[in-house]
Amino acid sequence: MTTLWRKTWRGLALRIETDEAEESSGAGTGARSLSVGPSDESDTWLRFHPFSAAPYWCISSTGSESDVETRPLDERGDPVAECIAILEADVSPLIERATGQSENVAARETADVAVLLAAERALRHRPAVLDELDPVALRNRRSEKWHTYPSDVLPVWVAEMDFPIAAPIQDELRRFVESGDVGYPIGLRETGLPDVFCERMREGFSWSPDPARVEILSEVVQGMYVALEAFSEPGQGIAVQTPIYPPFLGSIRDTGRELIDNPMLLGDAGMTFDLDGLASTVTPGTRMLLFCNPHNPSGRVYRRDELERLAEIAVENDLVVVSDEIHGDLLFDGRTHIPLATVGPEIARRTITLTSASKAFNIPGLRTAIAHFGDPALQRRFNTVLPRHARGGIGLFGLYATMAAWRWAQPWLNEVVPYLAENRVFAERALAERIPEIGFIQPEATYLAWLDCRALDLRPSPSAHFLQHGRVALSEGRAFGEAWAGFARLNLATSRPILAEAIDRMSKALGR
Amino acid sequence: MTTLWRKTWRGLALRIETDEAEESSGAGTGARSLSVGPSDESDTWLRFHPFSAAPYWCISSTGSESDVETRPLDERGDPVAECIAILEADVSPLIERATGQSENVAARETADVAVLLAAERALRHRPAVLDELDPVALRNRRSEKWHTYPSDVLPVWVAEMDFPIAAPIQDELRRFVESGDVGYPIGLRETGLPDVFCERMREGFSWSPDPARVEILSEVVQGMYVALEAFSEPGQGIAVQTPIYPPFLGSIRDTGRELIDNPMLLGDAGMTFDLDGLASTVTPGTRMLLFCNPHNPSGRVYRRDELERLAEIAVENDLVVVSDEIHGDLLFDGRTHIPLATVGPEIARRTITLTSASKAFNIPGLRTAIAHFGDPALQRRFNTVLPRHARGGIGLFGLYATMAAWRWAQPWLNEVVPYLAENRVFAERALAERIPEIGFIQPEATYLAWLDCRALDLRPSPSAHFLQHGRVALSEGRAFGEAWAGFARLNLATSRPILAEAIDRMSKALGR
Repeated sequence: MTTLWRKTWRGLALRIETDEAEESSGAGTGARSLSVGPSDESDTWLRFHPFSAAPYWCISSTGSESDVETRPLDERGDPVAECIAILEADVSPLIERATGQSENVAARETADVAVLLAAERALRHRPAVLDELDPVALRNRRSEKWHTYPSDVLPVWVAEMDFPIAAPIQDELRRFVESGDVGYPIGLRETGLPDVFCERMREGFSWSPDPARVEILSEVVQGMYVALEAFSEPGQGIAVQTPIYPPFLGSIRDTGRELIDNPMLLGDAGMTFDLDGLASTVTPGTRMLLFCNPHNPSGRVYRRDELERLAEIAVENDLVVVSDEIHGDLLFDGRTHIPLATVGPEIARRTITLTSASKAFNIPGLRTAIAHFGDPALQRRFNTVLPRHARGGIGLFGLYATMAAWRWAQPWLNEVVPYLAENRVFAERALAERIPEIGFIQPEATYLAWLDCRALDLRPSPSAHFLQHGRVALSEGRAFGEAWAGFARLNLATSRPILAEAIDRMSKALGR
Repeated sequence: MTTLWRKTWRGLALRIETDEAEESSGAGTGARSLSVGPSDESDTWLRFHPFSAAPYWCISSTGSESDVETRPLDERGDPVAECIAILEADVSPLIERATGQSENVAARETADVAVLLAAERALRHRPAVLDELDPVALRNRRSEKWHTYPSDVLPVWVAEMDFPIAAPIQDELRRFVESGDVGYPIGLRETGLPDVFCERMREGFSWSPDPARVEILSEVVQGMYVALEAFSEPGQGIAVQTPIYPPFLGSIRDTGRELIDNPMLLGDAGMTFDLDGLASTVTPGTRMLLFCNPHNPSGRVYRRDELERLAEIAVENDLVVVSDEIHGDLLFDGRTHIPLATVGPEIARRTITLTSASKAFNIPGLRTAIAHFGDPALQRRFNTVLPRHARGGIGLFGLYATMAAWRWAQPWLNEVVPYLAENRVFAERALAERIPEIGFIQPEATYLAWLDCRALDLRPSPSAHFLQHGRVALSEGRAFGEAWAGFARLNLATSRPILAEAIDRMSKALGR
């Protein structure tokens, strides 16, 4: 037995263990168990086996090899949830049965909740698969990334990751599929998703949004379109920092608004925001700011002072701000995401925060996103301009996969983010060596690298050149803003061998 | 070996077989194989085992027990599709290898395509589970039907079925979940869904719609809301036949339109449409007809002459018609659904047909529906009133599950529909025996029974009474139109034991 995780809870020792013999036979899911014993770990009183073929738990008698009692974990269709529920209920009588005496289980404390949640996360976790990706399996994917170009093209474009999804998400989806549970979802609020979102914001970013101010959408992009309809009129100005995720530009165009461009600055320190430029660019006819932080494609993260200055400009000009924070879980080098709505009450009141688990947890195909409104009047207007049902229904799988991600999948993300951080360094070095003409702007967040290819002078564009001559598909720079045609976006979220292959193909496309 | 299916194809015998020994050990999925041999079935030349743990196929030598060659089915992530692709490609050289001679494989004929599709459907099929449903598993579902009321309430309300989903749909979902393939879907048109929809309409209803006139939505209800926004103004009249699926009424209310009620008639022949009433009710301010055929909740199917009269009225009054045909696959007693758009070119031009695989194949949680426009101008207007992205993205699972349903799941539906037809008769008899005061209107389609409970005079309503006193949840009659408060809707799509239990609870609620 190997102990994977241990912690003290209510004066007891909680341990997650795995049997190495069984571990070696597969993904290590069969053998993980949760044990409860005395704090000196000299004994085991309760043992839970949620991953057995027939999940069960048992009360073990102190000082003996025999179990007092064995019971199935078959009441909820989710054996892990059942284990946790047993511990959440009164555990004292169970310990008494195991020890034969009236053992003292410590009284509940606030911190116990966090320990039990950590235990649940550790129990549901399986190591992320990152460096060993099978190109054949990837080619069989039917997602846009792998299904758009011919099979001899290596795709490193659209922002999805090649890594398999986190175990708690996969297990949740399996549960629905195996039980054929694909009926109508219950009311969106009743699913608990708004609360899970708020808890996630508290835990991750010390932000305490209000679940009542949450709307569930299918995509961040949907939120952008509806917000433009709700808070501006055709012809009015919408400020944006280009280069920018193409749907920002598409939404302004499709709704007949005017793009007020506040291009980023490119200097020795990489890409930076031009806040003075924003202040002078915003016109009286400018109604909204479509904001992206962490910024896609530059990977830049706004500093607190920058956010404060941006908030001032928004308040001075009475702008409604749509803040796309979908990359907020993907920051490197010890940085922490600062939600715009936490910068101050004035900016919070005029901010619609859009986010989703789809980016960090790689489930965009499930189509679930969150809009949070800093003010009830904003939310009312958003819901009035378009009846809720016209926005469409949200799929059952997306709702529950999002909750599984935000509740339980942080241990997976804790493995993914460092791998992405290393990929970033790897790509920078490899490009410096093979194609030193490319200006590599190291992202502070996101798994996207914005490549300055202007020195190569590739026609008709860098991405077209790499595609045609190297059979490697990057994102087209021009799609992020007309002025950025000499750039390309490289998706780093793949295994290092595949990333190396992508850079090799780019290099070969230049005849090197 | 038991032969489950056989057919002649290109002069060869195709057979699907199952090994009885293996069959008895489970759901019978492990042992199904597809064989190809001479038309007299004296031999087997090719054998495909797509459901083996390691799927493979082999070429067998004539007159010998040994295989000439064995190859894996591992190239597409979908071994059944791979089998079919091998047969679709040139099969002659394979037969030559098996027989050692230049065998004549008949030239391709048009009918061959249908035979191969039938083989694929039979191969992907597993018998529908209908009569043996596990109430514990149903209680563990997180869908609205099973998750809205306390666990002592038996739910027979919202229109989803208790049966497990069809095997080809489940297998398709499994494939996505097991491979973690949950990235962005490719372009909606490129998925092939519009073509699959059109093919399904041709095959089922002799209707040949145009794939270019298709929009993919998340729900039929979304289509209703957007159509109301596109083709009418607030205050204008929208004709509806009540009692009606509640979102019809909700969409008219939410968009500020006026309900023009054309109530159905209840006579000795059950519920019938009041077409003369419609002609006289429609005002010059009436712009649209929201139409439901087969009709929910009455289960009534419009006859061709009724549809023709309805079309006349729509044309005379220049109405745009939204035709919800989501129950079109669920007709009984040999009836066939007649899409409104097939009644004539004049009505087709003004019709938006809404449908989805979600009802007949029981996948509403996956949120995928179709809108077909009889005229490009209608479609343009629909797409202009609201930018496409404001409608939200469509989930990957829904897109592919819908295609799996429409392409492959008809054998499952062929088992489900007769079972539902019998449930209808069973419920009528049981109610006649236990609660003869209830007027049971036998549905001609749908799995819904519209119960006339007026003679029982239950307060505050029939469904409230049954819920409170019998712990059985039916749908509230009043939700289908104010005048229908004395009615309730019973969902028949469950196992007969559960249906019997529901009727028993209704009876007990009356103290019987």
